[in-house]
Amino acid sequence: MPIDHYPSSSEVREVGPRDGLQNEAPIAVEARIDLVDALSETGLRAIEVGSFVRPDAIPAMAGTDRVLASITRREGVRYRVLVPNLRGAELAVDAGADELEVVVSVSGTHNARNLKMSVDDSVEQIRRVVERAASADVPVEAILATSFGCPYEGAVDPVRVVALAQRLRQAGVTTFSFADTTGMATPLTIVALLDELTAAGWPTDDVALHLHNTRGTGLANLVVAAQRGVRRFDASVGGLGGCPFAPGATGNVPTEDVVHLLDSLGMTTGVDLEALILVALELETVIGRQLPGQVMRAGPWYRLPSA
Amino acid sequence: MPIDHYPSSSEVREVGPRDGLQNEAPIAVEARIDLVDALSETGLRAIEVGSFVRPDAIPAMAGTDRVLASITRREGVRYRVLVPNLRGAELAVDAGADELEVVVSVSGTHNARNLKMSVDDSVEQIRRVVERAASADVPVEAILATSFGCPYEGAVDPVRVVALAQRLRQAGVTTFSFADTTGMATPLTIVALLDELTAAGWPTDDVALHLHNTRGTGLANLVVAAQRGVRRFDASVGGLGGCPFAPGATGNVPTEDVVHLLDSLGMTTGVDLEALILVALELETVIGRQLPGQVMRAGPWYRLPSA
Repeated sequence: MPIDHYPSSSEVREVGPRDGLQNEAPIAVEARIDLVDALSETGLRAIEVGSFVRPDAIPAMAGTDRVLASITRREGVRYRVLVPNLRGAELAVDAGADELEVVVSVSGTHNARNLKMSVDDSVEQIRRVVERAASADVPVEAILATSFGCPYEGAVDPVRVVALAQRLRQAGVTTFSFADTTGMATPLTIVALLDELTAAGWPTDDVALHLHNTRGTGLANLVVAAQRGVRRFDASVGGLGGCPFAPGATGNVPTEDVVHLLDSLGMTTGVDLEALILVALELETVIGRQLPGQVMRAGPWYRLPSA
Repeated sequence: MPIDHYPSSSEVREVGPRDGLQNEAPIAVEARIDLVDALSETGLRAIEVGSFVRPDAIPAMAGTDRVLASITRREGVRYRVLVPNLRGAELAVDAGADELEVVVSVSGTHNARNLKMSVDDSVEQIRRVVERAASADVPVEAILATSFGCPYEGAVDPVRVVALAQRLRQAGVTTFSFADTTGMATPLTIVALLDELTAAGWPTDDVALHLHNTRGTGLANLVVAAQRGVRRFDASVGGLGGCPFAPGATGNVPTEDVVHLLDSLGMTTGVDLEALILVALELETVIGRQLPGQVMRAGPWYRLPSA
């Protein structure tokens, strides 16, 4: 029964140093540098290093320029940063970021509350970021927040998601991350969006998914997406990063759990899982609390505890 | 793209009062009765109430006869108990259990360490339990432990699992639960066993899966099983129950997360999820620690936190 066909390789994009740390009490820039360097040694090829936002807004991301300046750049690894606007893009390009990320919500309500502007204004902002980045040959990825549901509006129609992605492509964006910002996605809403993208002639090559595990569905969602050919997934070391809408709930899917699952599906990640587990365990001591990752505790299935 | 076809209904079998509590410090019989009664009010149709094992071996299960005697039996709910041997079966039948469960490991090493006997001896034991139960018209389900991997032997060949299930059927067992005892299953090993069962002409009607989330794959495994028609799944309220082979790791998949996912797939559970969440939250206060369930913290996706 050939129900399941999975791609033969995958790319896990690490978001812990930005999306994970941004909700934590600030840690030293040196610790952030050590974290990025340790992650880059595991075989991960894309690492979100930080963001260029106002330090008073997100203190944990202050000093991202120093992180970029001091990390040991490993060949083949793309060091990415999130930028909120043109000024952030200029700082990021000057600091040597390999790729920029911009965010816009499909939900107008979420965009207004999160970014304090309309979706139209966000698209215009992104157009300017793309122009600036293009002049330095730096690609820009758009993160479409609330692609699978909005904590204010509820269900989000996939037609709206595709329409926004098409506007962003016209604005010069080349790759796209569809984000389950507050963990509302389920397997059926994942495939609904992917099928809508396919129907619109969208190339799956530029699709990445940013999944959360807030309701336990993160890896179930990943599997059905992989069955439709998606092979790029965001994840956060140890599962670092919460969900502001659900106190005590988890956010990002843990990188070790994602790597463990993808490799088990034959979707080779190229990541040294045991090395990654050590990074996650070390991060716990830096953060000072237990992280929600499962594989970091139990080890991969083939590591026999009683051998 | 009709990759995914899911059954239109499902049955979630609650195992918290037995499989969950058995690894905890004993709680009062009255608290166990309250738990079973509260669970039976949520729409769950099968509840594992306890086990008839030696109280010195598993103190938390002492008094299961009193639990069975004092619960408020709700029509349509099957109250099930685990029995280790003929003596346990007699006690369980006398105490009024609706269904019995017996355990045998596919892995001889695990069976020897866990049950202190050979697989052959376990099958013989089960034959006698079935005979005794049949005389009282009580059905017996076999739980095939380590169906997806053994912490001592590693990978387990699905051919061995099917062969053992066939022996048990000849011994009179009518329904079967394939257990991922230590959370080693991945989507590919799940489908490998299901395909082997199908190839052997096995009716999927009598297949249940007992999944663990020890490595984060619990619900991903559930989804691929559901794509192949499996509709009966064990789960533990709040995710109660650890994994003895991985300290700090989680064990059973949380019932709320399973119900939330199954309902989202259109596999109607008939369970009142909000009522179930309240039971899980109350259980935390009884147990005195945070449980790993996600939906109990975040609420279902359609419950908007900011509405």
